[in-house]
Amino acid sequence: MASGKPASGEDSLIARYFRPLATHPGAFRLDDDAAALQPDGSDIVVTTDAIVEGVHFLPDDPPDTVARKALRVNLSDLAAKGAAPAGFVLTLALRNADEAWLIPFAAALGEDAAQFNCPLLGGDTVSTPGPLMVSVTAFGRVPPGKMIHRSGAKPGERVMVTGTIGDAALGLAILKGGKVHAAATAAAREALVGRYRVPQPRLAMAEIVRAHASASMDVSDGLAGDLAKLCGVSGVSAVIDLPSIPLSSDARDLVLRGIVGLEALIAGGDDYEILCTIAEDCVEAFSQAAERAGVAVSSIGTVVAGSALPKFIDGEGREITLERLSYSHF
Amino acid sequence: MASGKPASGEDSLIARYFRPLATHPGAFRLDDDAAALQPDGSDIVVTTDAIVEGVHFLPDDPPDTVARKALRVNLSDLAAKGAAPAGFVLTLALRNADEAWLIPFAAALGEDAAQFNCPLLGGDTVSTPGPLMVSVTAFGRVPPGKMIHRSGAKPGERVMVTGTIGDAALGLAILKGGKVHAAATAAAREALVGRYRVPQPRLAMAEIVRAHASASMDVSDGLAGDLAKLCGVSGVSAVIDLPSIPLSSDARDLVLRGIVGLEALIAGGDDYEILCTIAEDCVEAFSQAAERAGVAVSSIGTVVAGSALPKFIDGEGREITLERLSYSHF
Repeated sequence: MASGKPASGEDSLIARYFRPLATHPGAFRLDDDAAALQPDGSDIVVTTDAIVEGVHFLPDDPPDTVARKALRVNLSDLAAKGAAPAGFVLTLALRNADEAWLIPFAAALGEDAAQFNCPLLGGDTVSTPGPLMVSVTAFGRVPPGKMIHRSGAKPGERVMVTGTIGDAALGLAILKGGKVHAAATAAAREALVGRYRVPQPRLAMAEIVRAHASASMDVSDGLAGDLAKLCGVSGVSAVIDLPSIPLSSDARDLVLRGIVGLEALIAGGDDYEILCTIAEDCVEAFSQAAERAGVAVSSIGTVVAGSALPKFIDGEGREITLERLSYSHF
Repeated sequence: MASGKPASGEDSLIARYFRPLATHPGAFRLDDDAAALQPDGSDIVVTTDAIVEGVHFLPDDPPDTVARKALRVNLSDLAAKGAAPAGFVLTLALRNADEAWLIPFAAALGEDAAQFNCPLLGGDTVSTPGPLMVSVTAFGRVPPGKMIHRSGAKPGERVMVTGTIGDAALGLAILKGGKVHAAATAAAREALVGRYRVPQPRLAMAEIVRAHASASMDVSDGLAGDLAKLCGVSGVSAVIDLPSIPLSSDARDLVLRGIVGLEALIAGGDDYEILCTIAEDCVEAFSQAAERAGVAVSSIGTVVAGSALPKFIDGEGREITLERLSYSHF
């Protein structure tokens, strides 16, 4: 008789922690080599984003927040593209199968998958001698041809952004210690660190973006750099009114006290807000729909013709020079 | 005027090395946050497999072979599921943006994407302080409901496998040095290492598997263990005739000379052959179709009722006990 266990360590890890999440019929209980997405006439929108320990999250970030961030950074892309979530696959590179880490990781991933109606469809679990890495490929659905692109912004349109900008960059600064940590109140620390660790994907905006935006993307690498990308692909430029950039009260307090500059906030990463352009005659409908969806939106500037980098104008009408636009891995 | 480059290092890396591969209209020239797969009435089959330096490939494996392996291990899954490739997304975790590595990596990936009609749709490039990791999520199409599962094997059916088994495990053993390296001829070394580094996805079999197989999977973690998985999910067992397991002449030579045992070959990983079960009255049609497609297939045993682990019977009718069935990460 053949000896040995039919279920390897990897298989039993998947069965134990992740099978309970695979509720979608197309996940085949994770018993198969592949999942299946059935056609319903929609385009399938595909996005993939990985997070690496020490790069996108910190080694001592709680496992539940790592799970949520890995899924949510992808859901944020779907929302910005106007897509409704349809499911995701997960690649998990682990140093070891540590139950104390995997149990809260899988539980939080399952909660988010349920909350955002984005079931786990499949995945791969591999060992690595290096940093933990969580790679997610997420799928969404849009009516055929209706995905909203980065391209499409036209001169005269408004530049709009959801939520507030810079909180996650401040959260990361707080986790790294230093002057922001020292200056922030305990409540501010908790709120800002929460924004860094657990983004809020703006899925409530997906349909609204699809209905009204000419171009859209999520702000993940810094508002200034991401706007430059949107403008570059659209073949336009923009003029941004710095005082109109929405800040949380915590961020505003740190800026007013001179602890951080506004530039650091608009070049910082991990906002996961939606940046989009809206034709003037759609702004009211867009704003009202966002309000009904419970999402704050702000008009921060105007799309203009040209190929220059976007300009940032302060409260006295002066153009501000940014040292850097965004985070880059290389 | 805002200073800084609109294209970050990461963006220019993607533009330089990977945009030329993104020929599919749904890839949007990698200018967007997401790709789109258009509906054609097919089910979209989704599979994801990652390869990690030091685990799935060796630190000094040539970059072109790393690229090919990363894509091909996923194409192998699609083939086993009966799916035609539709595209893939790539997540690349790199220590640095080394041109001498990226140029051959991207070139080989592009060649394989073209050869297997599986275009790059999108991806994410992240920095890591740890081992290089390449994660691919690949998409295929099958007629609705026609994906072939691991489940579905029924008692009385034949167990069939494509190609030859164990070559990749020998290739890895050769790369690690030791007695296999010492015993193999230079030509055998090259052939076996080639099987380890660059799998041959059996896409020519996809439609044939779909037409004839009751259950199917690719052999990636070892024939013995993968057969146990297929049987477990199908609720059956199997009896395998060891002398019928197809070996290359190089592998046969090493077994006959006593350098390696057959057990090591059928528990070794990285074969990327198709293991499937075929009803007796379909075997001839299946075999003839495979021959027309230029793929060797072998009947290696029979599906039997029961929940025991598959049995392996040697040339004298004795049951062989395997120390381990397959590779497991944990």
